[in-house]
Amino acid sequence: MEAQVFEELKALVERRDWKTLAERLSQMHPSDIGEFLTYVDEEDKLDVFLLLPPEIASDVILETDKSTRQHLITSLSRTRLTEIVDEMDTDDATDLISELPEEDAKIILRGIKPKESMEVEKLLQYKEDTAGGIMQAELVAVREDQTVEETIKAIRAVAEEIPDIHNIFVVDKERRLVGSVPIGKLILAPSKVKIKDIMNPKPVKVTVDMDQEEVARIFQKYDVVSLPVVDHENRLVGRITIDDVVDVIENEIFEDFYRMAGLQEDDRVFSPPAFSIRKRLPWLFLNLFTAIMAASVVGLFQSTIQAVVALAVLMPIVAGMGGNAGTQTLTVIVRGIALGELTFANAKKALLKEILVGIANGIVLGVVTAFLAYIWKGNPMLGAVLAMAMVINMFVASLTGTLIPLTLRWIGVDPAIASGIFITTFTDVFGFLSFLGLATLFMRYLT
Amino acid sequence: MEAQVFEELKALVERRDWKTLAERLSQMHPSDIGEFLTYVDEEDKLDVFLLLPPEIASDVILETDKSTRQHLITSLSRTRLTEIVDEMDTDDATDLISELPEEDAKIILRGIKPKESMEVEKLLQYKEDTAGGIMQAELVAVREDQTVEETIKAIRAVAEEIPDIHNIFVVDKERRLVGSVPIGKLILAPSKVKIKDIMNPKPVKVTVDMDQEEVARIFQKYDVVSLPVVDHENRLVGRITIDDVVDVIENEIFEDFYRMAGLQEDDRVFSPPAFSIRKRLPWLFLNLFTAIMAASVVGLFQSTIQAVVALAVLMPIVAGMGGNAGTQTLTVIVRGIALGELTFANAKKALLKEILVGIANGIVLGVVTAFLAYIWKGNPMLGAVLAMAMVINMFVASLTGTLIPLTLRWIGVDPAIASGIFITTFTDVFGFLSFLGLATLFMRYLT
Repeated sequence: MEAQVFEELKALVERRDWKTLAERLSQMHPSDIGEFLTYVDEEDKLDVFLLLPPEIASDVILETDKSTRQHLITSLSRTRLTEIVDEMDTDDATDLISELPEEDAKIILRGIKPKESMEVEKLLQYKEDTAGGIMQAELVAVREDQTVEETIKAIRAVAEEIPDIHNIFVVDKERRLVGSVPIGKLILAPSKVKIKDIMNPKPVKVTVDMDQEEVARIFQKYDVVSLPVVDHENRLVGRITIDDVVDVIENEIFEDFYRMAGLQEDDRVFSPPAFSIRKRLPWLFLNLFTAIMAASVVGLFQSTIQAVVALAVLMPIVAGMGGNAGTQTLTVIVRGIALGELTFANAKKALLKEILVGIANGIVLGVVTAFLAYIWKGNPMLGAVLAMAMVINMFVASLTGTLIPLTLRWIGVDPAIASGIFITTFTDVFGFLSFLGLATLFMRYLT
Repeated sequence: MEAQVFEELKALVERRDWKTLAERLSQMHPSDIGEFLTYVDEEDKLDVFLLLPPEIASDVILETDKSTRQHLITSLSRTRLTEIVDEMDTDDATDLISELPEEDAKIILRGIKPKESMEVEKLLQYKEDTAGGIMQAELVAVREDQTVEETIKAIRAVAEEIPDIHNIFVVDKERRLVGSVPIGKLILAPSKVKIKDIMNPKPVKVTVDMDQEEVARIFQKYDVVSLPVVDHENRLVGRITIDDVVDVIENEIFEDFYRMAGLQEDDRVFSPPAFSIRKRLPWLFLNLFTAIMAASVVGLFQSTIQAVVALAVLMPIVAGMGGNAGTQTLTVIVRGIALGELTFANAKKALLKEILVGIANGIVLGVVTAFLAYIWKGNPMLGAVLAMAMVINMFVASLTGTLIPLTLRWIGVDPAIASGIFITTFTDVFGFLSFLGLATLFMRYLT
């Protein structure tokens, strides 16, 4: 939305000119109204929202940010909220109702149209991150011996409720999915033609308990904008549209990198501070534990450090470079797994490549660092120890950067979970161990 | 694709049973054939690919991985390749041609249909990461005084070339965009109705030089599956469909986290090792430089360490915890910026929150660490110094984790670029400085 429009609307709110504001809002796209509402002062949000007719309000509330939505849901009368939910698609109604306290959810479910209520109750039973959790009940299904004309009539009957039909699904008398017809094909067919003659008899479909990430992959693979959802008897139970899948794709990628950093999915930029503190602390404690492990490695070499203090100065370089190289490898591997490019079948190839890259970079950087250390301290052996430790630690970085996410996946855990913390632990431990260990070994050349 | 199907197909390749294989492939979805080709041995790829008729081959080649595609493009005869490109949508043809050496590109452009060739040459001029770079020329445009019947006729004329029409665009006689009609609406309108009576006169649209990330955000905001692209005179020049946008969204998110880790976009899990080495080294050198900076801070306190070697043991804990907390903040902030939740307008709120979270976590972890250090060394002052340094470093972590990406964005650079390296530099430098500095200050209580 343009800044000028935004300022004009804000001025109307300040002047309490509700009539003009309502008029202006009625010309706007629900997404833009939702964006505007997000920035309206909290005490005015409800007043502005009540200017909207229910059929617009139901779209707008889905486009506001989480805290605005929470505020509105809590402040609206239950009657008004029921009207709004009644206008929603079943998948959105389900998401909203699942955010409500149980008592309120019951009130709403009793208030909306019985058919929708029944469907929402069904949808509420599916796990949030499965095909069932993101599908909607709104769809158009016809039988294969119906004609194009009859099908268009069926679409017309629901056109107001379901504006975004991309495919018609074809079912048999047990409601088993037997085909699909893109709407573009329907428009071109003569009106007396039977659906079975123009349908695709092998439609791409997903099952109701399929993980949403898998669903997203199928959407991408087949470049489709909507897919039918079937149960284990191949009965048509719902439909998923691409807009919901885009959110899934986005969230799944962010989730990987959140986990890598030791963050939880719901910890967002404007989450309340107390919430973020609580969510981040467990991971920081895990990191504290691993940092103490790394420190205790240094503890083994106190007498070496006492003898050559320069080692304490240089040891963070070895550890830090390993951490960085490990994070590079880890990021590449997590991406490869997420996109399905990296599987257990080709994991060995990836591992060998990363090890090669790690050792090569270790040699280049080790030689440069050794040269710098030699200039600084005038001791070639110190440089040599530094270079060797660097190569060893870059090798460890590439090894763990590849194997940790693969192992996590192998034992059935998210491959990214806390992996950033694990990698830096390994590179710290092996960085200190190799550098201080080699220094101890070659001590007589260092003093 | 099921593993069994895959094995059967592979067996056919091994037996050189091309006839049966061709038959099997003709029953399969192009995406599945593309996936299969990716796993066929290199020397057999071309033989298998040549079994496909050009109209299928053109879809299949787009679904293979990059190295298979490169191999096929190089091995196919120019005549065959021309036939295949001729079957493609203009956006895909443009992408493929831009991968070819100039000489080959010219041959192909001369070989394909003159109309498509002209359009591809136009598309080749747009920058890859703009709306123009991802749009296609295939679309259906009608004038506003045409009827529904005439429009359906226009769709029929191009139906074979453009199977995925979601919207009809409406233009005036200068080809300026004046409206759009979803195909679902067209199907329900009486055939004599004029397009202007059912069109949306304010269609959402994008301009040809708009950044692809911005385009993706508009698709998501308005939940649309295709959008018209206009030039600066509002003339319709192309169309973008959601499947291309999904790839953009996915790549932009990965790009952020790639940059955070000091990686370049094209460095993938199976890139050649020499390529990955070359791409990662510059970032590792940047990291070496910053690591030396951090080490030189330690260098300032050599006499302190000499006096109390335990400091060398504990200092990596302070630095490491800061690095982890900083990465948490950074990840949350980068996500907030990417999703448009965090802007300069609300940046102060985000900064204050992160600082609060950082200090609070610093206090909790500092107290625990101090207690552990006290148990280990029996010196309460050592614990106190550790706790203070931890709080200071967690504060620095939250400050830099927020300000570095925001500053990078402010000066017009990607907010994630190398930010992981910068953050750990700050937390290393300030971790060592605060811990060793405080230790020097309170030296007489430590020995």
